[in-house]
Amino acid sequence: MNSKKVPVVAITPGDPCGVGPEIVIKALVNNPDLFHDTIPVIIGSPQILKETMKPLNISRRVTELKSLEAVTAGSRDILCLDTNLQVHPPVTGEISASGGAHAFASIEIAIQLALKHQVDAIATGPINKEALQLAGIGYLDHTEMLTKLTKSQNTMTLFVTGDLRVFFFSRHIQFKEISASLNVPDLLHAMTNSIAYLKKIGIREPALALAALNPHGGEHGMFGDEETHVLEPAVQQAKDAGLNVVGPIPADSVFHLAKEGHYDAVLSLYHDQGHIATKTLDFHRTVALTMGLPFLRTSVDHGTALDIAGKGQASEISMVEAIKAAARYWW
Amino acid sequence: MNSKKVPVVAITPGDPCGVGPEIVIKALVNNPDLFHDTIPVIIGSPQILKETMKPLNISRRVTELKSLEAVTAGSRDILCLDTNLQVHPPVTGEISASGGAHAFASIEIAIQLALKHQVDAIATGPINKEALQLAGIGYLDHTEMLTKLTKSQNTMTLFVTGDLRVFFFSRHIQFKEISASLNVPDLLHAMTNSIAYLKKIGIREPALALAALNPHGGEHGMFGDEETHVLEPAVQQAKDAGLNVVGPIPADSVFHLAKEGHYDAVLSLYHDQGHIATKTLDFHRTVALTMGLPFLRTSVDHGTALDIAGKGQASEISMVEAIKAAARYWW
Repeated sequence: MNSKKVPVVAITPGDPCGVGPEIVIKALVNNPDLFHDTIPVIIGSPQILKETMKPLNISRRVTELKSLEAVTAGSRDILCLDTNLQVHPPVTGEISASGGAHAFASIEIAIQLALKHQVDAIATGPINKEALQLAGIGYLDHTEMLTKLTKSQNTMTLFVTGDLRVFFFSRHIQFKEISASLNVPDLLHAMTNSIAYLKKIGIREPALALAALNPHGGEHGMFGDEETHVLEPAVQQAKDAGLNVVGPIPADSVFHLAKEGHYDAVLSLYHDQGHIATKTLDFHRTVALTMGLPFLRTSVDHGTALDIAGKGQASEISMVEAIKAAARYWW
Repeated sequence: MNSKKVPVVAITPGDPCGVGPEIVIKALVNNPDLFHDTIPVIIGSPQILKETMKPLNISRRVTELKSLEAVTAGSRDILCLDTNLQVHPPVTGEISASGGAHAFASIEIAIQLALKHQVDAIATGPINKEALQLAGIGYLDHTEMLTKLTKSQNTMTLFVTGDLRVFFFSRHIQFKEISASLNVPDLLHAMTNSIAYLKKIGIREPALALAALNPHGGEHGMFGDEETHVLEPAVQQAKDAGLNVVGPIPADSVFHLAKEGHYDAVLSLYHDQGHIATKTLDFHRTVALTMGLPFLRTSVDHGTALDIAGKGQASEISMVEAIKAAARYWW
């Protein structure tokens, strides 16, 4: 959505013991069109990348960078900014402190580069929580690292599957707590943020739809009253505040309508509501964007898959989509 | 799934004041391939069909039938078994007793023909509850008519979208009652019926997946315990009873996996869980099958749309899919 320049996208391969390095290599080697819209720069160990190529029968030169000052668009070189980590090399397929240390070093450098505007967005590969703990890293996951290291307040996940964009009001809470989690101030806050984030990714006058909770949106209270008691008042307040929000729209049509272009995004009320929509539509091409940071972070949608690491079986589709989303939505 | 013969599919246009007759005509005129796999017979008023064609600029002969004894495959004639209803002709776009009477007469005849095996399945167009009431018909909707007139006990809805098939454990209940609605005996009953219905539509050794309730299926109780307390025991009992059932599978992957062919159907736990999956995937090509009747009934997925009736704007896609599903799944 941004046409100023070709963005530099920092790619963090994630835990080198998992499939991360393999999917990054495959993404760049098998998808030369990625180089049209981005300058991809891997942040990691050039040595690990070279080792990763061998069993894949890929022999591409890895250009080792000391800084990002000289990078220019148009080349198809595989660029790697060396993390220069002096730790024991990790073993593919095994959870290790070394793997956790490599993963964290890469992300930390990427964040610093993004804060200094030397990269325009970050696309992250999968990490392993246990490996981070073994390495003595005091962060639970990507979101915690990104939030704390950038001193951000709120972050919000945005799923993108083709033209369908979905925010989440809640994620990892019990299903039976969902109804009670709904309240006007928090919904208003989430709608306000969703609209702001849509503007951030380049949508000028965003239209947001709020999903309903009950079947058929409750049919005027016949099957539940959260719509009339909470969701409708929240939408009304959002409208009164000048936001272009509609809803609540029954959940079995709102995602379809958004996909068809009626809204720029849907605010889903719970994890599975938005996940079922995006992942049933296209499981492998669903990309997660972390909003609320000073820069855009996109991520693959799967774990380290240690069981198939180094075997050449991992699909790079999700990594490709994460890089494409970074190229499309950076600011 | 049945190759014995070309099935006779009774098509009930629904309320003649709505878009029903138009979508039936368009379905048959615009989709000649329907005649390869079915002998479609409209149950209704030939006069209304002829009137419907005029504003559509369609001039196809309607062959009026007195009985179904002589129908044969291979022709593309528009066949209509006359309901011979001596009531005032209805006005397009208006709710009326006449419309309700026409709709009910058509369905009642179709049911009797199906019970006598003179038709092999019924594909129904949309009806209007208010019009049925005005006509003094003592049934609320299709499901009630079909259940009572065939003296059936249980019916269950099966949604079909391409290769994805989804049953529903519950439908029109409040969202906040969903968790409490789950219990082992009812789930076991629903899984048993689902498997039986899959066999009925021609799947020889059906594999069924049960969807989970909580995000990530609860992650071992971290986000909810319905999986460990209710769903897992229910699946275990189903397995013990010799049913090929797996689950609970997290809802954000179970529909994707079913679509990819890992299971023949998913038993979803609530209305929107299954609706979001099917309707986001392909809103217009989602067909509802009513299982548990002596014969197969398929239906369009929309209402009478009185506001656009007679204007030539209605899409016949859903009607086409309902006829195709009848042809594919009849028994």
